[in-house]
Amino acid sequence: MIDCGEGAQIRMRQMNFRTARLGHIFISHLHGDHCFGLMGLISSWGMLGRTAELHIHAQRDLEPLLGAQLRYFCDKMPYSVIFHAIDPARHGLVYEDRTVCVYSLPLKHRVPCCGFLFEEKPQDRHILREMIDAYQIPIAYIPRIKKGEDYVLPDGTRIPNGRLTTPPTPPIRYAYCSDTAYNEDLVPLIQGVDCLYHEATFEEEFLKRAQETQHSTASQAATIARKAGVKKLIIGHFSARHSNQENLLKEARAIFSDTVLGMDKGVYPIVGEVK
Amino acid sequence: MIDCGEGAQIRMRQMNFRTARLGHIFISHLHGDHCFGLMGLISSWGMLGRTAELHIHAQRDLEPLLGAQLRYFCDKMPYSVIFHAIDPARHGLVYEDRTVCVYSLPLKHRVPCCGFLFEEKPQDRHILREMIDAYQIPIAYIPRIKKGEDYVLPDGTRIPNGRLTTPPTPPIRYAYCSDTAYNEDLVPLIQGVDCLYHEATFEEEFLKRAQETQHSTASQAATIARKAGVKKLIIGHFSARHSNQENLLKEARAIFSDTVLGMDKGVYPIVGEVK
Repeated sequence: MIDCGEGAQIRMRQMNFRTARLGHIFISHLHGDHCFGLMGLISSWGMLGRTAELHIHAQRDLEPLLGAQLRYFCDKMPYSVIFHAIDPARHGLVYEDRTVCVYSLPLKHRVPCCGFLFEEKPQDRHILREMIDAYQIPIAYIPRIKKGEDYVLPDGTRIPNGRLTTPPTPPIRYAYCSDTAYNEDLVPLIQGVDCLYHEATFEEEFLKRAQETQHSTASQAATIARKAGVKKLIIGHFSARHSNQENLLKEARAIFSDTVLGMDKGVYPIVGEVK
Repeated sequence: MIDCGEGAQIRMRQMNFRTARLGHIFISHLHGDHCFGLMGLISSWGMLGRTAELHIHAQRDLEPLLGAQLRYFCDKMPYSVIFHAIDPARHGLVYEDRTVCVYSLPLKHRVPCCGFLFEEKPQDRHILREMIDAYQIPIAYIPRIKKGEDYVLPDGTRIPNGRLTTPPTPPIRYAYCSDTAYNEDLVPLIQGVDCLYHEATFEEEFLKRAQETQHSTASQAATIARKAGVKKLIIGHFSARHSNQENLLKEARAIFSDTVLGMDKGVYPIVGEVK
């Protein structure tokens, strides 16, 4: 989960999310709309009998604030909350497991802030079943072939891996960048991602206000998407002054056509067509 | 405002509440569903440019927890938040202004907890305009007559106040009692109130669970209402296990007929007919 504004637990219930497997929450920065939902979420999960550890990744200032509340409100919870401090000013690995790496993406905002890049680990090559049958390759060898090894027949003939497999599915990459002023330093870090979420708080007309508050316009978000050659862009974090978000979408699409509006309760595939 | 669960500010916006005149929040106890909305509310009001002081009345443990968050998240707010510690174990005056007194009502819950009694101050007697005209009473005397004084005519004749006025509108009294186990000690403190909000977490069938968790059944809430001779009862704080709240209403009405269900987004007149 990325960020946790007030009411996140309520929205999750409304959307029937299964939260048992949600083990890590990444907090971009310590403004209320990105972290005030943590206590409610954590304590409700305790009351629902959660036992799995929950890991919070955020800049270090959150630890004492959250810790004091956890000690008071969540004294006898059946699960542990583990805090991991991240340095939002640094681009680096903040989390890794069997299938994914998560990197911090330094952003430019009024307070220390970072986005996150989620990168799937490289997957195995796809085996060609008919070749396995043709060369009568024993099952025990298949994992090694999937990793790229050649196969040597009993008579010593070497079958190159390229004849036995096709390339792996490319790792999926998703970048989340909110809240931030226009920041070209992001471009090399998110080059070619499958999906970029980038804030677009204002229409271009409010560029000055965007600069003052260290936010982006829809045009700026789309410019980052275009420069980084991402596959698609989701824009969000719209200012309340823009009641008609179609203008924001229009503005972004003029620069980067594969843009969608990130709406409340929206569900967007990371990979696949923009609707 | 009484209590402030997560999402309170969101609901207020949805209902177009005017919050500029909301100056006092009374917190019954420090469970998340009664106080996790405070930080969001306070910081949003700051961003909206509120300048009026906000007073929080709650048991003292909240002060350091809230204070640490306010110092971090609400550093440069244009208004002040002032904390007033209350002792939830004691029945006493916690707030008073020109028109209203607020008293704490000790409740029985798993943590220190109190309800609140809101009592209008006595109003002036109603003047009978025709008698003012008949006796040609100067305007300057009217405020004193409204307070109950007799009027003495120039010839020395004393006109008793009862001929010049009718009794004042009785002060409105509203009692809020959540969360609590069945507690007959409340009865004398809320005798005859115009409206009682009393929690009714469970159906009577779950009496044992109610006792374990220090909550009330709908029957118990209605019994308190009947014993205290209140004018009407609003029940609320229903357990998620009771998806059909009509049973709770039926159970309460069997004991105290002037009962209504307190529903999300509901608006209920303190004085006036139960619908």
